[in-house]
Amino acid sequence: MDRSPLAPKRFATIPPVAGVSLATAATGLKYKGRDDVLLALCAPESIVAGVFTTSSTRSAPVLDCQEKVTKDTPDGLAIFVNAGNANAFTGARGDGTVEAITRNIAQTTGLSEQAVFTASTGVIGEPLDPAHITPHIQTLFGSRHNNGFEAAAEAIRTTDTFAKGASRDVMVDGKPVRIAGIAKGSGMIAPDMATMLVFLFTDALLPKAAAQSKISTINARSFNCITVDSDTSTSDTLLFVATGQSGQNCEASESFDAALEDLMLDLAHQVVRDGEGATKFVEVNVSGATSPEDARRVAGAIANSPLVKTAIAGEDPNWGRIVMAVGKSGAQADRDKLTISFGDILVAENGWVSPNYSEEIGSNYMKAQELTINVDLGLGSSAARMWTCDLTHQYITINADYRS
Amino acid sequence: MDRSPLAPKRFATIPPVAGVSLATAATGLKYKGRDDVLLALCAPESIVAGVFTTSSTRSAPVLDCQEKVTKDTPDGLAIFVNAGNANAFTGARGDGTVEAITRNIAQTTGLSEQAVFTASTGVIGEPLDPAHITPHIQTLFGSRHNNGFEAAAEAIRTTDTFAKGASRDVMVDGKPVRIAGIAKGSGMIAPDMATMLVFLFTDALLPKAAAQSKISTINARSFNCITVDSDTSTSDTLLFVATGQSGQNCEASESFDAALEDLMLDLAHQVVRDGEGATKFVEVNVSGATSPEDARRVAGAIANSPLVKTAIAGEDPNWGRIVMAVGKSGAQADRDKLTISFGDILVAENGWVSPNYSEEIGSNYMKAQELTINVDLGLGSSAARMWTCDLTHQYITINADYRS
Repeated sequence: MDRSPLAPKRFATIPPVAGVSLATAATGLKYKGRDDVLLALCAPESIVAGVFTTSSTRSAPVLDCQEKVTKDTPDGLAIFVNAGNANAFTGARGDGTVEAITRNIAQTTGLSEQAVFTASTGVIGEPLDPAHITPHIQTLFGSRHNNGFEAAAEAIRTTDTFAKGASRDVMVDGKPVRIAGIAKGSGMIAPDMATMLVFLFTDALLPKAAAQSKISTINARSFNCITVDSDTSTSDTLLFVATGQSGQNCEASESFDAALEDLMLDLAHQVVRDGEGATKFVEVNVSGATSPEDARRVAGAIANSPLVKTAIAGEDPNWGRIVMAVGKSGAQADRDKLTISFGDILVAENGWVSPNYSEEIGSNYMKAQELTINVDLGLGSSAARMWTCDLTHQYITINADYRS
Repeated sequence: MDRSPLAPKRFATIPPVAGVSLATAATGLKYKGRDDVLLALCAPESIVAGVFTTSSTRSAPVLDCQEKVTKDTPDGLAIFVNAGNANAFTGARGDGTVEAITRNIAQTTGLSEQAVFTASTGVIGEPLDPAHITPHIQTLFGSRHNNGFEAAAEAIRTTDTFAKGASRDVMVDGKPVRIAGIAKGSGMIAPDMATMLVFLFTDALLPKAAAQSKISTINARSFNCITVDSDTSTSDTLLFVATGQSGQNCEASESFDAALEDLMLDLAHQVVRDGEGATKFVEVNVSGATSPEDARRVAGAIANSPLVKTAIAGEDPNWGRIVMAVGKSGAQADRDKLTISFGDILVAENGWVSPNYSEEIGSNYMKAQELTINVDLGLGSSAARMWTCDLTHQYITINADYRS
């Protein structure tokens, strides 16, 4: 699969985060000639917080992480990721696999099993035999180093066309604090599904509850605001580790929060930029709604609409389909108060096409690789923002033409 | 556009319905060399009921019909349909067009304006000049005949690849009663959207309230259970006229209700069979849900999932994507109680693939043109059924490749 045309030119430069060591290895479970497992070890006193898919058929590793993430990890913690098999819908045997892997990692690292978190991504419904994984744990443990974010991001890819990473350095009360993150998603080939995994590490000092609160809040404005095809993974996992090794308490730091949000948005956008078959990166802004829920409903209806997304693929300034999506959203809307613009170009207002708008102006705008669709409902003061991509032939090719 | 591979071999034979006369004509508004307007006149004492899109940006004709459909029509009524322009999102001017057309029809037919119903389908956002329509009204009125359902179904097409119609004859208390119907949808070419129009006529004698109740109930189990791409039209209109000329009161007739439901399902399935780019007709059955809403939620999540629909296009028995769709639906579900089958083939049970299932069996099944996906949630006694089609390259071609 060619690198997405929307990909950044190169992987971000990500310096080490104090208290975090990483190692990758190749098990050959599904992919040949590349690393496919990742072990991250985080120093004692690290805290962890997490956000997970709400799917009712979520995978065994997700269920395991959700149970552990609320517990304290005074001796530090480990995160293990494998790519190629999602260990999802694998029944009780799948739970056993998670247990076997975490037990092995606990024994190797000296951590308790409660401090070992796992994530699996790839094929669904196929058993993941722990015997494929455990022989590599000792090697992973022995080969850890501090400067491995790019290799880590490469190892957790499935059908992503590029590795995703980002970091931010921020001054908090005169002291430098670092946040780094890697992500995978949402390219896929049958029978995989768009699995999103995100791992964030910071040397900030954060109480566990504060870390969870920050990550939950910002997740709602970043990873929960992106869509490629409206299908939800059984494996979505975001883990956030704070090692505290900068010595700087960031619980109440607005600049830390801003840097964390900026980083998470960066990674979320990278996921959209790797959306299957994507050739356009689209921001959808909705304002003037009577409630935040309504604003989000309209943004989601536009961002997920196959008709809107195919029009974008065809570079067709088809504002009628945006009117359709607003109408179907279920949100309160009034035809005669609706304003639609493409970037700065006013397209429709007062219930009809704007007098200064022409198809030629609209068509020219749609040729850009990055597009903004703005909808003002004219009814209230609530707003929402989402990011999506277009729906192309390549999406069908990726998801229909290759047999599993 | 080639006739859909899922289309019936030929248009149904539909005999006249007493009290209903039809005429079609060619205005040349958008289409050349074919009729594009329909006038249906229904005799005095006819009653009318209707169901309409819930879109908040619905078209001017829909708003007008919704206001009129609750009123009595002792002198009979007229239905006028034009294809090629939806008169949707055309502001106050659009309302004026509806007024001008209905006034002209009222004057020509001698009916009150309150008894004239209109429906428009086609391009959105373009003004519909009544001067294109009104010169044809007198001709339409003069050329009415009783045997014109096929011509009527042809005239209301936009990008449908075949005309849709059906009829049922049923004996009620020893007397013959007839129901006939035509529909259009959901083939489309940018910038149109999947507009569904349905017109049903019967010679049964029905109180207006009973007719409305029947049509609302059955609509929820037929037209509201089909999906092509999850996008909702601004123009969906279903009108049901009972002329009473059979003299047979069918208010409490179960056989009439059964025939009406059978007819509406037939038309609904014809719409799915004309879904853009469709090559497979798919029935989705969900059972074992804890509530009817949950059953419907799961059926909808499967029927609308781009990943499920692309897998079907690729003849890929990708049951993992069905697990995914169940999981994302928001309905109560338990991995270990879920049973999935393709037709009679048991695919997954007890949280994992069934021991007797093989990919080969599944792959063979997926080659059929008509497929059934069954999901039992194993939690309760509620069920739901929906119909959908696959998502193919041709869908992208129709909606992205042609510029508006």
